Amino acid sequence: MLDFIRSDLLQFQAYTPHPGGELSIPVDILDTNESPYDLPADLKEKLAWVYQNQMDTNRYPDGSHQELKGAIAAYVNESAATDAIAPAWISLGNGSDELIRSLLIATCLGGAGSIFVADPTFSMYGIIAETLGIEVVRGGRLADFSLDLAAARSLVVDPVRVVFMVHPNSPTGNALTEAELDWLRSLPDHVLVVIDEAYFEFSQTTLAAELPAHPNWVILRTFSKAFRLAALRVGYAIASPAVTQILEKVRLPYNLPAFTQTAALFALQQRDLLLSAMPELLRERDRLYTALSDLPPLTVWPSAANFLYLRFTPDDPHALVILTQTLKTQGTLIRQTGGGLRITIGSPGENERMLVRLQTYLAALTSGMES
Amino acid sequence: MLDFIRSDLLQFQAYTPHPGGELSIPVDILDTNESPYDLPADLKEKLAWVYQNQMDTNRYPDGSHQELKGAIAAYVNESAATDAIAPAWISLGNGSDELIRSLLIATCLGGAGSIFVADPTFSMYGIIAETLGIEVVRGGRLADFSLDLAAARSLVVDPVRVVFMVHPNSPTGNALTEAELDWLRSLPDHVLVVIDEAYFEFSQTTLAAELPAHPNWVILRTFSKAFRLAALRVGYAIASPAVTQILEKVRLPYNLPAFTQTAALFALQQRDLLLSAMPELLRERDRLYTALSDLPPLTVWPSAANFLYLRFTPDDPHALVILTQTLKTQGTLIRQTGGGLRITIGSPGENERMLVRLQTYLAALTSGMES
Repeated sequence: MLDFIRSDLLQFQAYTPHPGGELSIPVDILDTNESPYDLPADLKEKLAWVYQNQMDTNRYPDGSHQELKGAIAAYVNESAATDAIAPAWISLGNGSDELIRSLLIATCLGGAGSIFVADPTFSMYGIIAETLGIEVVRGGRLADFSLDLAAARSLVVDPVRVVFMVHPNSPTGNALTEAELDWLRSLPDHVLVVIDEAYFEFSQTTLAAELPAHPNWVILRTFSKAFRLAALRVGYAIASPAVTQILEKVRLPYNLPAFTQTAALFALQQRDLLLSAMPELLRERDRLYTALSDLPPLTVWPSAANFLYLRFTPDDPHALVILTQTLKTQGTLIRQTGGGLRITIGSPGENERMLVRLQTYLAALTSGMES
Repeated sequence: MLDFIRSDLLQFQAYTPHPGGELSIPVDILDTNESPYDLPADLKEKLAWVYQNQMDTNRYPDGSHQELKGAIAAYVNESAATDAIAPAWISLGNGSDELIRSLLIATCLGGAGSIFVADPTFSMYGIIAETLGIEVVRGGRLADFSLDLAAARSLVVDPVRVVFMVHPNSPTGNALTEAELDWLRSLPDHVLVVIDEAYFEFSQTTLAAELPAHPNWVILRTFSKAFRLAALRVGYAIASPAVTQILEKVRLPYNLPAFTQTAALFALQQRDLLLSAMPELLRERDRLYTALSDLPPLTVWPSAANFLYLRFTPDDPHALVILTQTLKTQGTLIRQTGGGLRITIGSPGENERMLVRLQTYLAALTSGMES
């Protein structure tokens, strides 16, 4: 039975986007690091108008993405205070996921190489690699979640061909340190360095200006977070044209729906408006960080992104599960991952409900422990 | 330079969706087998309304596709006069392209197997296989474009793990014959049989009712042709749940934008309306077939799909290029492929313009040959 399927795949567990089960109460979605805000109504209206009046649903979308690439290149230059990034430095994917897959296909398939990740980090690098039969070498992190560089130096050797780093990291929120950056800069040309800047708009720290000096670097970004387009699936890679040409070869020719391309274009045109939500989110993040820091037995880490990472001290895997479940039954979704909890910064109301529910749970836990 | 890229990929040519170059005149798009008709205005209006009022652009789409799978299963059952197909028999992709890639990943990666195709056929099977480093075994076809079964029997042996057949075939338009079907039915369980029914709504010939008897069969279909959703990218696989579970593991978790899922759902709900365009298209196809049959030196083949296939007799590669270019400069796009021309059936006006331009070209060609 199923003799035509690769035997390693039969055992493999798929990524579960959300924990299963429907809730009958209003839900605060603080488990997937999206923006809490939809596009403004007038922008949605304009998109809907363009769909109705200028978009042929029956025709294949533009497979070249030329207009969107141009707008993205301009935005990247602006964001990195450079003028080095031309449209040929951009390649687009159905979310960053598709770009991660294309990079893995282009580099490591069929035993050509393995990849390096340092847990806890974004799980899709490892998951997609496993679907492709690519070995994953896992490094460790120090107490501040920066890379254990001594271990990384010994692990990133042949046959490792790709290093994946998130900047700032998910789920832990830390941006790359100068020591980590120096290590990435020192990696040899035959190792591809993928720097995932999914949370750039929150951190305002980008390595895009360094790309011309590093032909073995690729930066990934997404419209799913600060740009509020998670529903429509679009991510992009920034790299030298020699690398983006390979990505263009590997991708599916019509990978981006016409509606998605137009929405991304509009989002970039309206970026000042969309990104004007950043200061509130960062203030809320810092407010929650302070409030959560006061809650033993939790430890919370500083974050350069739109989420916070917490753990129980000492580790308490059972409490992690119970807390996540308890908050879910009350209407707050948070993500249990990497031995801790990742909580997305939502609207002030969502954040306040989360905080009160968390405090209430911890108070009951403490009184239960005392009784 | 680019030492991290698989060396076989560096040589590889990407799929070119349309020939390059922009035209400054109105264009009849008869080269990509789409429906000539957009969704009706009131359906687009309803979709736009739902987008504005019920869709959160900032939230990840439903990664389970449950509602759409249910609607597709009902449609498949109706289309095949069966009740065997439950939602668990469906898996959805960003166009059939993504499903083809997932099937290849699940079966043949890393030297686990190779695939069989018979040219001329849909080129993406071979192209995606090559991006994945999978060997392609190519069979031949007889004068009526049915499979050379004697050759196929000797070629589909270990390590061939997947056979791809389009039903009806593109670009040649022929449906599978009883002899071809018997051969597919006879293939051993360890060979996956992929039957691409992209043009089912035109041919009204489906093998879906046979799926329960063949756990090694997968049927692919698409919303890009008769359902008029090429711009939005959605295809589906029909197979036993054991196979769809593997496809679900391999696919990217949020592969279908929310707008795309809703559009496909609406298209299915309005299928009587959308498919009411079929009789006109089939009449036009038959009218063009008759008209083109009268034009030496062209040979045209009967078609069960929404396109016709033609060749020069005797073969004339130069004339193919010139004719395609000439029609393009006049505003009719047709596709040069597999040593012939594939012409999509458009609206009556588009078809008539194509026919007149073709007749004019051939008349000039003949008079040029005589002079």
